[in-house]
Amino acid sequence: MSTYVLVHGAWHTGKELATVAESIEATGHKSFTPTIKGNRPSDTRDVGLAEAIQSIVDFLVLNELKDLVLVGHSYGGMVITGVADRVPNRIRRLVYWNAFVPNDGESLNDMLPPQYVELSEHIAIGRGDGSVVLPFTIWREAFINDADLDTAQRAFRVLNPHPIKTLRDKISLSTNPAEMAVAKSYINCTEDTSLPHHYPWHPRLSQKLGLFRLIQIPGSHELCFSNPARLAQAIIDAGRD
Amino acid sequence: MSTYVLVHGAWHTGKELATVAESIEATGHKSFTPTIKGNRPSDTRDVGLAEAIQSIVDFLVLNELKDLVLVGHSYGGMVITGVADRVPNRIRRLVYWNAFVPNDGESLNDMLPPQYVELSEHIAIGRGDGSVVLPFTIWREAFINDADLDTAQRAFRVLNPHPIKTLRDKISLSTNPAEMAVAKSYINCTEDTSLPHHYPWHPRLSQKLGLFRLIQIPGSHELCFSNPARLAQAIIDAGRD
Amino acid sequence: MSTYVLVHGAWHTGKELATVAESIEATGHKSFTPTIKGNRPSDTRDVGLAEAIQSIVDFLVLNELKDLVLVGHSYGGMVITGVADRVPNRIRRLVYWNAFVPNDGESLNDMLPPQYVELSEHIAIGRGDGSVVLPFTIWREAFINDADLDTAQRAFRVLNPHPIKTLRDKISLSTNPAEMAVAKSYINCTEDTSLPHHYPWHPRLSQKLGLFRLIQIPGSHELCFSNPARLAQAIIDAGRD
Repeated sequence: MSTYVLVHGAWHTGKELATVAESIEATGHKSFTPTIKGNRPSDTRDVGLAEAIQSIVDFLVLNELKDLVLVGHSYGGMVITGVADRVPNRIRRLVYWNAFVPNDGESLNDMLPPQYVELSEHIAIGRGDGSVVLPFTIWREAFINDADLDTAQRAFRVLNPHPIKTLRDKISLSTNPAEMAVAKSYINCTEDTSLPHHYPWHPRLSQKLGLFRLIQIPGSHELCFSNPARLAQAIIDAGRD
Repeated sequence: MSTYVLVHGAWHTGKELATVAESIEATGHKSFTPTIKGNRPSDTRDVGLAEAIQSIVDFLVLNELKDLVLVGHSYGGMVITGVADRVPNRIRRLVYWNAFVPNDGESLNDMLPPQYVELSEHIAIGRGDGSVVLPFTIWREAFINDADLDTAQRAFRVLNPHPIKTLRDKISLSTNPAEMAVAKSYINCTEDTSLPHHYPWHPRLSQKLGLFRLIQIPGSHELCFSNPARLAQAIIDAGRD
Repeated sequence: MSTYVLVHGAWHTGKELATVAESIEATGHKSFTPTIKGNRPSDTRDVGLAEAIQSIVDFLVLNELKDLVLVGHSYGGMVITGVADRVPNRIRRLVYWNAFVPNDGESLNDMLPPQYVELSEHIAIGRGDGSVVLPFTIWREAFINDADLDTAQRAFRVLNPHPIKTLRDKISLSTNPAEMAVAKSYINCTEDTSLPHHYPWHPRLSQKLGLFRLIQIPGSHELCFSNPARLAQAIIDAGRD
């Protein structure tokens, strides 16, 4: 039996991973789905990356979680990398699921095509509360392309405005992922076009892990909504020894 | 209920898409499979791209088709792009299925590896009637690699000589695909090697659509013969709102 | 009915392909799984590439095998290319399964990322008997990423030290693969990360075949252990006319 901690992406909370966690638990493992600081309903949207990372470190310490498989989705890749740098001894394996892989001094924005950064900064300026939201058309076509319209709309309604500072902040790491001693896996959903395929998740970002285990499955960036059971299986295949 | 118009590729007619259309209709949609001018048995082979495009525009007008999902396969991508430019108001969504995506002033040949153009021009010179045909070995290995030999041979026998002028002609567009207001999808069959994978359909050509929905499925360029029901499902996933 | 000869990769023997061969035979074909000279228990590890190739030529001659589908896995691609150059008339089709495709004068090492060559030379120096072995961690994560730990460990135990001279030796060919008259197929397991995906098997190496038939299936480099029946089906799809 292993312990899985699933760390969500931008605009999400842990709640959206509950169905995935249930599927994991149904196979006899334990799983947790904390919400990162800055994405909780009561949080202000001026949270930065270091605070976001610290909130998951605190969660692990508070719950005395050890020897765990730490899974990060998308922006969650920034967070789990920071967590692994701060509390390496608590982690058995890192699993990046279509997730950003930063080296020391990199921000999430540094790994985006420049026009994506421009769009997100433009939206944030319009909002003025430190957060950025995703236009529905982009969500429908590029993030959840494998679902029907009804699923896409229901999923869109639970998204929350995301603190843009966490996308701008450069991460501070004592060790880059490729040099971390912990085992690493990368789950690549093959129809994930939230990053364009000419500027892809895998192998562009995954190769920054050094030696890692690749698990690929059909699906969009939002497989947590379109096929949570299939995603859970991939997480188990990625997370086992 | 939606209306699907399926526009075939080079060497094909609408007839070869009949089984796909039946599968689409079985799910409650309407579908049409016109043959482009230049590929009909009675057509001369001196037809150019503008005439080819106009023949599908005429088909839509004649049948009073509106609010439709316009699907183009391979060379059909040239045609549906031209149709969308001429009668944008009739179209709800464009679906490119391993199809060429031209910008204003580009020909299909401009998107081919140079040695492919040479080969096709060489074959056309030998024929001397304005048409080009596909050698069986290339068809068998690179176009219909997922079928057995019998299917490959039967499908080959229904191909028709293709007017080479349609491959040479540069398209005239008032708006490039990325700037068209209509919704767009791209279906990529992952074993389609009719274009070599180091010079691929997706994302090399698909990215010219700007924002689009990606649907990927296993299969060769000729999934209409090797698995029409699976293709129909992909078209529905690509064509829905 | 066809005759299949399956040529294993580095560190393997023909024995590890027995289950694949049984699946092929169950569909009515004949199949053989010779072990290349240098990988047999009694062989010294100073064998070079020319001897390795000759041992398979000898096997075909001794068993009077003709009109056969010759399949090579990984390093086996070097061997079948050499065999096809020496006895082209015995071969109906070459099937490369995540295999190296050399041109005249190239070694296997020439097709590896430089750091892989360094690592393998470093290991060989440490051993001092002319052979190289694979560290378990690399095997587990990058070669057999689709299996559970137990399968990965059992498979690892049957591997044999591989003669490093066969990786260094430049092949001597009278005809490069793209110019060989024989039919060719390439099987690409889509999760094969034994070569990193930014330096991949397909299309980087497959394109050296010229016209070839692509068959893709999910799986790691070691599908012979993780899903031999699925691999057998791919070999039949690749090997048929």
